[in-house]
Amino acid sequence: MITYPSKLVERAVEQLSSLPGIGRKSALRLALHLLSRSGSEVHLFADALTEMCDHIIYCRRCHNISDTELCSICSNPARDTSLLCVVQHVGDVMAIENTAQYRGLYHVLGGVISPIDGIGPDDLTIEALVERVREGEVKEVILALGTTMEGDTTNFFIHRSLSGLGVKLSIISRGVAIGDEIEYADEVTLGRSILGRTDFEQSIRL
Amino acid sequence: MITYPSKLVERAVEQLSSLPGIGRKSALRLALHLLSRSGSEVHLFADALTEMCDHIIYCRRCHNISDTELCSICSNPARDTSLLCVVQHVGDVMAIENTAQYRGLYHVLGGVISPIDGIGPDDLTIEALVERVREGEVKEVILALGTTMEGDTTNFFIHRSLSGLGVKLSIISRGVAIGDEIEYADEVTLGRSILGRTDFEQSIRL
Repeated sequence: MITYPSKLVERAVEQLSSLPGIGRKSALRLALHLLSRSGSEVHLFADALTEMCDHIIYCRRCHNISDTELCSICSNPARDTSLLCVVQHVGDVMAIENTAQYRGLYHVLGGVISPIDGIGPDDLTIEALVERVREGEVKEVILALGTTMEGDTTNFFIHRSLSGLGVKLSIISRGVAIGDEIEYADEVTLGRSILGRTDFEQSIRL
Repeated sequence: MITYPSKLVERAVEQLSSLPGIGRKSALRLALHLLSRSGSEVHLFADALTEMCDHIIYCRRCHNISDTELCSICSNPARDTSLLCVVQHVGDVMAIENTAQYRGLYHVLGGVISPIDGIGPDDLTIEALVERVREGEVKEVILALGTTMEGDTTNFFIHRSLSGLGVKLSIISRGVAIGDEIEYADEVTLGRSILGRTDFEQSIRL
C-alpha cells in the first residue's frame, strides 16, 4: 500500500490507473511526469481528452467515429460502395485502413453477441446493417469480427439476418500469420489453415 | 502513418502519446477506451489531472509535494528530526517511505548537478539543505541519490558544502540487489560490493 504525500496526487494516480494496462506504479510515474510540466500544458492535455469525448460524433451510416454526420470514408466518392466490411469496433476500421488493401465501406457493430455480458443482437447495429443491404447497392458483405466464440455466434446471426437478400457473404481468411514459423503456430490455427488451404497459383497472385 | 477518423481523436492520441512510455498504438487504445466511458467520467479523469497540477504545493521545509505548506512528514511529531535523507525526486521519498525502514525527515533536491543539462548547484535546493543543517537539530545526513556520475558529483558537492558543520554524512549502501544471483550481477556493482563488504555479524543483525 503506497502512501501518497498529497491527496491531489493520490486522486490523479487513481484516475490514471483506471486506464487499461496502467498499474499504480506506472500511474504514479505519469502523475509525477505531469507535475513536472507547465500548468498550461497539462490543461491542453486534459482538454484534448474531454473535448474528444464531448464532441465526438458517430457516422449515421457506418457508426464509425467522425467529426461530421457522415464520416470521411462514407462520404468519399472514390470508395467502392458495393463492398461492405463488418467490424466490431472503431479501432478495427483504423487497423484495416492502415493495410491500404480495402477500398469498400464499413459497418461498425459496436461489439459482438455475448449472452454472458448481456449483449444481444438489439444492442448492436445489426438491424441497421440489414437496412443498408436492403437498399440494394451492396453486393458483398465481408465479415471481419474477432475469431472468438462470440464473434462466430455473431457471424452466424448476420448470416441468417442477410439470407434471402441476394448479397454475397464472405469472411476474412484465418490461418498462420505471415512471418510466423509453422512449429510455433497454435494447433487450432494450424489445423484450420490446413483445412482451409487455398489454391497455390491463386495465393501467389495476392 | 495511421489515419484517424476524427481530428478530435488525433489530438487526444497526440497528447496521450506525449506521456513517457506510451507510444501511438497504446495512446490510440487509451483514447478509444476513454471514448467508451461516460462524459462525466472523462471530466472527472481530466479534472483530477489539472487540479493536481494547479493546486499542488511544495513543502517549504523538505520540498516534497504536499497539500499543505508543511508536508505530512515534516509536521509529524513521531519522526526523528535528527536524521535527514537527501533524495533527487519526490518519487524517491515515496519509494523510501514504502520500505517502512526510515523514520527521519527528507530533503528533496529537485535533481542532480548535471552540466550537460545546464543544471548547477543553484538550480537545486542545496543552499536550503545547508540552512537546515545549520539550524543544529540534524545529526546525520544520509545521501540517497541515484548511483550515476551526476549523483556522485552532487554527493561530493554536498559533502563539501556541509563540511565544518559537525554533521555526520552517510550514504546508502550499494551492492548486489537482494534476490539477485551473483553470476548475473553487473561487474561494476559486484566489484563495488566486494570492496564495500561489511562485517557478517553486523549484516545478520539487519
